Amino acid sequence: MSEKIIVIGGTAAGLSAASAAKRLDPSLDVTVFEKSGYISYGACGLPYYIGGVVGAVNDLISLNVEQVTKERNIKTFICHEVIYIDRVKHSVIVRNLKRGDESKYLYDKLVIATGAVPILPQIPGIQSHGVYTLRNIEDGIKLREALIRVPNQNVAIVGGGFIGLEVAEELAQSGHHVHIYEALPGILSFLDAEYSQLVQDELNKHGVKVSTGHAITAIRTESGRVIGIDLDDGRECPADLIVMCIGVRPQSDLVREAGIKLSVRDTIATDNQMRTSDPMIYACGDCTHAYHIVTGKPVYIPLGTTANKQGRVAGRNIAGYKEHFPGVLGSIVTKVFDFYIAAVGLSLRQALDAGYKATICKIVKGDRASYYPGSRDTHLALIFDTENGKLLGAQALGASTVAGRINMLAACITAGMTVAQVNSIDLVYAPPVAPVYDPILIAASQAIKLVR
Amino acid sequence: MSEKIIVIGGTAAGLSAASAAKRLDPSLDVTVFEKSGYISYGACGLPYYIGGVVGAVNDLISLNVEQVTKERNIKTFICHEVIYIDRVKHSVIVRNLKRGDESKYLYDKLVIATGAVPILPQIPGIQSHGVYTLRNIEDGIKLREALIRVPNQNVAIVGGGFIGLEVAEELAQSGHHVHIYEALPGILSFLDAEYSQLVQDELNKHGVKVSTGHAITAIRTESGRVIGIDLDDGRECPADLIVMCIGVRPQSDLVREAGIKLSVRDTIATDNQMRTSDPMIYACGDCTHAYHIVTGKPVYIPLGTTANKQGRVAGRNIAGYKEHFPGVLGSIVTKVFDFYIAAVGLSLRQALDAGYKATICKIVKGDRASYYPGSRDTHLALIFDTENGKLLGAQALGASTVAGRINMLAACITAGMTVAQVNSIDLVYAPPVAPVYDPILIAASQAIKLVR
Repeated sequence: MSEKIIVIGGTAAGLSAASAAKRLDPSLDVTVFEKSGYISYGACGLPYYIGGVVGAVNDLISLNVEQVTKERNIKTFICHEVIYIDRVKHSVIVRNLKRGDESKYLYDKLVIATGAVPILPQIPGIQSHGVYTLRNIEDGIKLREALIRVPNQNVAIVGGGFIGLEVAEELAQSGHHVHIYEALPGILSFLDAEYSQLVQDELNKHGVKVSTGHAITAIRTESGRVIGIDLDDGRECPADLIVMCIGVRPQSDLVREAGIKLSVRDTIATDNQMRTSDPMIYACGDCTHAYHIVTGKPVYIPLGTTANKQGRVAGRNIAGYKEHFPGVLGSIVTKVFDFYIAAVGLSLRQALDAGYKATICKIVKGDRASYYPGSRDTHLALIFDTENGKLLGAQALGASTVAGRINMLAACITAGMTVAQVNSIDLVYAPPVAPVYDPILIAASQAIKLVR
Repeated sequence: MSEKIIVIGGTAAGLSAASAAKRLDPSLDVTVFEKSGYISYGACGLPYYIGGVVGAVNDLISLNVEQVTKERNIKTFICHEVIYIDRVKHSVIVRNLKRGDESKYLYDKLVIATGAVPILPQIPGIQSHGVYTLRNIEDGIKLREALIRVPNQNVAIVGGGFIGLEVAEELAQSGHHVHIYEALPGILSFLDAEYSQLVQDELNKHGVKVSTGHAITAIRTESGRVIGIDLDDGRECPADLIVMCIGVRPQSDLVREAGIKLSVRDTIATDNQMRTSDPMIYACGDCTHAYHIVTGKPVYIPLGTTANKQGRVAGRNIAGYKEHFPGVLGSIVTKVFDFYIAAVGLSLRQALDAGYKATICKIVKGDRASYYPGSRDTHLALIFDTENGKLLGAQALGASTVAGRINMLAACITAGMTVAQVNSIDLVYAPPVAPVYDPILIAASQAIKLVR
């Protein structure tokens, strides 16, 4: 009899795990249960769907249930929620959310890819009509409908992280009046304070208002509908619609109840083969931790890239291939309007907290030869250990070219390079593409002077 | 008495050497002799000057003689050619090209930064009116004048390397009828043949004709003016104006006569501190060789980035700082119209010639999430050692983002990474910037399958 693999969750991590396992060992009997009505969608594209840059919700979906079932030979059930794991009997209880009935399924190996859910603060009015989150396809459809129904709404975005900013950009571009409320002193709080301000300036330039340093304390309503928010400094701010973007938490309740070991911020603990404390159970994606490549410590940085890769590693290990997930650097990029923000590794704060004698070196440099038209400033910061020069992190703001520069520094951090070694790399040059001394080399040569 | 430093050549390498030496040791007495009428110019910008993208010749010049003399305290002479080096007496003979007189100058240390000159084939008609090269400012001024004088000329560009292509793009954009003649089987001959064809297709799409596989045998003239070229297959092709772009050779005659050791392709041999075989004489820039980081062998890859860095290293060593030039990877980028070409490290041919059991792995992948508008194909090739997986080179074609991807792979090659290690790097992702699996990761994961 073929080995039974049950996967809980049918998006990035879960479907990657199921597909990798089945592809490498076609004898496996693989079943996926997905709670929502959709599988295999690009959740990171949701801000662009609600803004209309992505026209149809189907564009975000790579594979439908039929394709996965027929082409990949994976039994796939949507609107099916796993509500109980019995580790002794190797079984799960699954509820059919449409019919309401429950069934028991046996597994030989189980994959937890339950993802994460938006954090909602326990404040008055949080359940009101007009308060939205943006996590899955259903969220996206609801929010887009609400936005299209009434033009030029006052939209309050609570949380100035990546998702908040992407939503703000998209809604401002579709004519709404957008105000971001961030409780921390600056938006994109992992960024250097000066860089955070540059992003805020860019948002302001395009009509997006930003308030920082004050938390929202209540959502005000009239006849059950949102009319505004209250801030902790007493301000009352009008809002027709609220999008909550203060972050996510791992969906780990099911495994917690099953007695599986948890890690930082209630993530599921795994080894680098994505095995949990139960040798028959794997976990991957936004419900798990990952080891940081710089510090070696477990962190919670839920990202689509990591979810896909962890899923694949889990699937390959289940199929008998010994494969390790190498860990994360927290490499991220986004844009607001035509201004791009990318970062990798530790921020200065994180580096100091981790015990490094770290400092930051910031430079501004055009991204083309000075005489070639269209050059734009690249703001580049290197965070490094002043004891030995080791590169620990980097942040870059400017044109879309910051993505490539941060990827290049991701390679350097992965290789354990010092800033002097970074400075010795032979980079490309042509007047329309880069200055003769790339911003990376300018930054590295400045950083070298601060080592030891 | 202060130590006398004489630098022969006042562009990238020479001026970098002079400036670094004087900055670090202000007691030095530094003199620069430049043969042409210009110093400190961005030669790589010349194609964009003749095309009009760069408006004025002065835009290409970073510093004039007065600035270098006054602000940097470096005695600077233009139109002064060093015609003889006396290594025994530590002196040089310098000819003032405007007045014609000669003077002798003593040196304690001498820096050779004489650069390179265009190679001109010894064919009938090569000296005719209407045959141009593009190496220095004077060349650029002459060529631009000739192009502006008569619109819609038939321009023959002889040589399909980077400079030839950049000139072709610029002249096609300014309305001339451009035909590139490349004697080798394909343009940009270091590229994979399929990639070379993609570039050729792009040129054709924009009206630039390309002939490959046939050398020119003569330049036909009428009353001393160019009217066409003859190819080795008997074809006669009309041309009003010819730009010779078949490459450059190092200007090393002066040091050869002085008995200093030469290296590959008549370059000046140096160690990694840029010292020649005479301990009092340094050399840097396009007149010297460099050590290839992958093979460790001396190569001749004259580029502006290398010239600047080698100059700085020479200057710092002269000032008493022990500094090494780390070598080159041949990292290059250019564009034709909106199509970018970048490469680093060894081509497959070079890798096989160097004795590696190498292969190439090529992929095509969009450079954004598939559902995000504006995604463009990235063509990416990895060249690697099938014995141990070590990355030896890479080539990329597509949007301007290829530059950042090749820089990232330059970091990987410098770190000695295998394709498996490249595949483990945590790269950035956002729908408008990159797909969830970056083209680099797609290529690396394919390459892994070909190792061992």
